[in-house]
Amino acid sequence: MGGPELENLIGLFARLPGLGPRSARRIVLKLLRERENGLLPLAEALRSAAASVRTCTNCGNLDSSDPCAICAEPLRESRICVVENIADLWALERAHVYRGKYHVLGGTLSALSGRGPEDLAIAPLLKRLEQGGIEEIILALPATVEGAATAHYLTERLRRFAIPLSRLAQGVPIGGAIEILDEGTLATALRARGAA
Amino acid sequence: MGGPELENLIGLFARLPGLGPRSARRIVLKLLRERENGLLPLAEALRSAAASVRTCTNCGNLDSSDPCAICAEPLRESRICVVENIADLWALERAHVYRGKYHVLGGTLSALSGRGPEDLAIAPLLKRLEQGGIEEIILALPATVEGAATAHYLTERLRRFAIPLSRLAQGVPIGGAIEILDEGTLATALRARGAA
Repeated sequence: MGGPELENLIGLFARLPGLGPRSARRIVLKLLRERENGLLPLAEALRSAAASVRTCTNCGNLDSSDPCAICAEPLRESRICVVENIADLWALERAHVYRGKYHVLGGTLSALSGRGPEDLAIAPLLKRLEQGGIEEIILALPATVEGAATAHYLTERLRRFAIPLSRLAQGVPIGGAIEILDEGTLATALRARGAA
Repeated sequence: MGGPELENLIGLFARLPGLGPRSARRIVLKLLRERENGLLPLAEALRSAAASVRTCTNCGNLDSSDPCAICAEPLRESRICVVENIADLWALERAHVYRGKYHVLGGTLSALSGRGPEDLAIAPLLKRLEQGGIEEIILALPATVEGAATAHYLTERLRRFAIPLSRLAQGVPIGGAIEILDEGTLATALRARGAA
């Protein structure tokens, strides 16, 4: 249709999460229309990210420096927030309410998918805790069966450090209409109700 | 959050049609997870497309060769299908029902947007027709007010060539439920009804 280069480019875009052949074609046509402001900067940004972005050996975040900017920031509080993945870490950072450090597990325990403790970054977390100086561990794991299993497992493993361990509150999300919430959320919110 | 390279890359993806900050972050995280199979091939495909893909000087299609593969194909019928843009040309090619050539106008006439005939590739179309040998012109323009105005204008301009001029049929789209169709489509389909 538009030669092998175009077909290849469209195919690569179509494989990205949330995209398909139709949206990939739209994107590629727009990029080619704006070659100087669209296509070339994107190619350069990808090349530059490939060259410079690495995984932080301390916490598992992605950054152009290792340790990452968060681990290197001297004013961060001596707390570690344990998250499943980097997207969750970024979401917490965007909320601007947490000023501590992070630890990316890289997944949750899952018997179904065959993911055991050795598949998650638990050993590096224990190592960080052994170095001391951590005042609190916050488990910010997904409110799913697998997230709960992982939180339970970590609670057992981290007990010996005698560091205060907390987890995110569960309940009605802000802006959420009651009528569309599932029974699990409603039950949790009702059980954990507080003074009005 | 992830350093300037990542912020820049996410920002560029977020500006693409159909994407936003959230989907851009998902895409970038996936690309970085699959650096060898995702990020680097995409950077290379963009670079290669920027270097090789050009606009066909004959019909306005995008391809790695000029004239494009369609214009260069010797077995294509001596018809020209006039389309608004390259996405429309590709859609017709995917349908595998048309074996002629194309002409990309690059837009439709629009008093509102201030697009006049001189903003569309009409002069190159007239030039192609002056060279002779074209047996039919098919107007495959959008079924909108602007598409109809453009079709009307072209009909007047092309009259002097005395080449059969046709346009796409309008009616109920295949697979379309009647109840969701707008009044305009229903009226058109009823007026243009044929033997059952």
